Amino acid sequence: MTVTHRIFNFAAGPAVLPVPVLEEIQRDLVALPGVGMSILEISHRSKTFESVLAQAEDDIRTLAGIPANYKVLFLQGGASMQFSMVPMNLLTAGATADYIDSGSWADKAIKEAKKVGAVNVAASTKAENYSRLPRQEELKLTPGAAYVHMTSNNTIEGTEYKELPAVGDVPLVSDTSSDMFSHPIDVARHALMYSGAQKNMGPAGVTVVIIRDDLLGRSQKSMPTMLNYAVHAENGSMYNTPPAFAVYAMGLVMKWLIGQGGLSAIAQVNDRKAQKLYAEIDRTGFYRGTAAKDCRSLMNVTFRLATEELENAFVKATTAAGLDGLKGHRSVGGMRASIYNAFPEAGIDALVQFMQEFERTRG
Amino acid sequence: MTVTHRIFNFAAGPAVLPVPVLEEIQRDLVALPGVGMSILEISHRSKTFESVLAQAEDDIRTLAGIPANYKVLFLQGGASMQFSMVPMNLLTAGATADYIDSGSWADKAIKEAKKVGAVNVAASTKAENYSRLPRQEELKLTPGAAYVHMTSNNTIEGTEYKELPAVGDVPLVSDTSSDMFSHPIDVARHALMYSGAQKNMGPAGVTVVIIRDDLLGRSQKSMPTMLNYAVHAENGSMYNTPPAFAVYAMGLVMKWLIGQGGLSAIAQVNDRKAQKLYAEIDRTGFYRGTAAKDCRSLMNVTFRLATEELENAFVKATTAAGLDGLKGHRSVGGMRASIYNAFPEAGIDALVQFMQEFERTRG
Repeated sequence: MTVTHRIFNFAAGPAVLPVPVLEEIQRDLVALPGVGMSILEISHRSKTFESVLAQAEDDIRTLAGIPANYKVLFLQGGASMQFSMVPMNLLTAGATADYIDSGSWADKAIKEAKKVGAVNVAASTKAENYSRLPRQEELKLTPGAAYVHMTSNNTIEGTEYKELPAVGDVPLVSDTSSDMFSHPIDVARHALMYSGAQKNMGPAGVTVVIIRDDLLGRSQKSMPTMLNYAVHAENGSMYNTPPAFAVYAMGLVMKWLIGQGGLSAIAQVNDRKAQKLYAEIDRTGFYRGTAAKDCRSLMNVTFRLATEELENAFVKATTAAGLDGLKGHRSVGGMRASIYNAFPEAGIDALVQFMQEFERTRG
Repeated sequence: MTVTHRIFNFAAGPAVLPVPVLEEIQRDLVALPGVGMSILEISHRSKTFESVLAQAEDDIRTLAGIPANYKVLFLQGGASMQFSMVPMNLLTAGATADYIDSGSWADKAIKEAKKVGAVNVAASTKAENYSRLPRQEELKLTPGAAYVHMTSNNTIEGTEYKELPAVGDVPLVSDTSSDMFSHPIDVARHALMYSGAQKNMGPAGVTVVIIRDDLLGRSQKSMPTMLNYAVHAENGSMYNTPPAFAVYAMGLVMKWLIGQGGLSAIAQVNDRKAQKLYAEIDRTGFYRGTAAKDCRSLMNVTFRLATEELENAFVKATTAAGLDGLKGHRSVGGMRASIYNAFPEAGIDALVQFMQEFERTRG
């Protein structure tokens, strides 16, 4: 095993992975023990890979307590592909889908859905730069809507739902890309959840969809087969060659997460990590959090300094100090610390110390 | 580095990769040299990843001699997703697309295209179990067709074009999944080529599309953004998070291929490997090749024995002998040896020796 220097990676995704997972991937990379082939070479129809995929699904089911009437699908194309697949499968002719516009990614989801059918924007905080989530009383929901679409964590703006919106009997569809498996989930309140893996779950290249069985009946055979949830469900995510390595790596992350004590345990760690950082942001006013306090994300901590010049200096200095990826998304500016499950608490402590030192010398 | 036993992997895809590539991936898995992060964790917007992607594209362009008026795209979803993307982008209203039905995958491509628009099956060898390719004089081409679709190598049936069909000025679209980069390619005679990487090019999880610029003008903005070739071209395959690891691994395979002397050199090796195997198949009549001799694939060598019982015994015995993946596709039965670029010649020799021994004891 090569001993290697690693830095603190605050990137929003692809993002940091647990070191033990990386080490296991490395150890077995040339040939899986007892198999004589690399996971990169193995047939997806082999018993070995079938068991890798089945184990990843089992562990996901265990972690999130997924009821038996939900399917877990491993797809490709990221959340962006889901922006189209959701309406193409679920927005049947004559129906309307409600979308909660809580951030830049929600906005993209809305744009794709409008290509497919009737969309009602139930509420939007775009005029406030998405600095807060729409409140329950602001939601203008359509009676009998095909579904309500929400974004559980807004990666760019740093807001996160603490409580799901109430939508009655209408199926709730959630883009959970950036907080999936960072805390316990009430799966039964959702009809569909989708997540690109590359935040909390694994490397880029696989997208997890958790879908309630009754929704599969809406998928029309006339649509492209590869975009049809029912086809992927019937074929156990093996209609065609799945992204085998990404599924394998995600499975190891799930195993690691179980070893950490599961979602309740990791949620405590995530809360502690985020609160340390927000406490430093709020300490003197030198730093300024951009999200409304009651909407703050535990995954993406966004903050600014008094001037862009100071922000540039901050980003440059942190990078030099081995605190990488703190530049905010190009659409909003400022800084963003993405601190997913696998981000080590030592990295938070290092950033807080750096922030104090930066304020002392530049404040 | 762990010393590991490896077997001979005849799988049709995902398939064998070059050992030096696997070893480089293994060496740098926990942290890329000088970067301090794993390729599995690195932001796709980082300079490091941008250069990984640019280098992979450069090497692909060098290997295949791709003219400047073609784009190279790295997408997700495999060839099956392309079965829909091709007609959704290129089959404009009122036009007809010609499809050459040369195998099971061509048949699937036709089914998807029919969902999108008018399709003319220009020729089919389905009635002959796809044991040969349609001949030029059999093609009933539509004047002014939107495009002609072909499958350069039929993975399941073991046939491969030696010469491209003549289609005049109509754009030629080819599913090159299973022979791409196994021999020199006349890119300029194609308008579009697409290949799932998991045969000759890399691990599963990335699909390479080579498309002539003028075709990009056909993509309508009203279609799902993720299926729009023009969007991916404008964004340099970074409209959303690409399958970063698969692109990286494919880049290393391209580098290895350049080191082997490029496409002409590997074509010679591939020819020698395949001829050794076909010579053994033809030697006594104990084995029987299933593809017409003038259509035989250098990538997928399909053959049968006198009875299914004997075939089952053969597959079982080869597996036990460390010659894995020789069972033919479930839709056609028999045996199939997939011997892509990275398949070692020593494995061919081992199989030939095994076949002779099997014939001696069971013949």
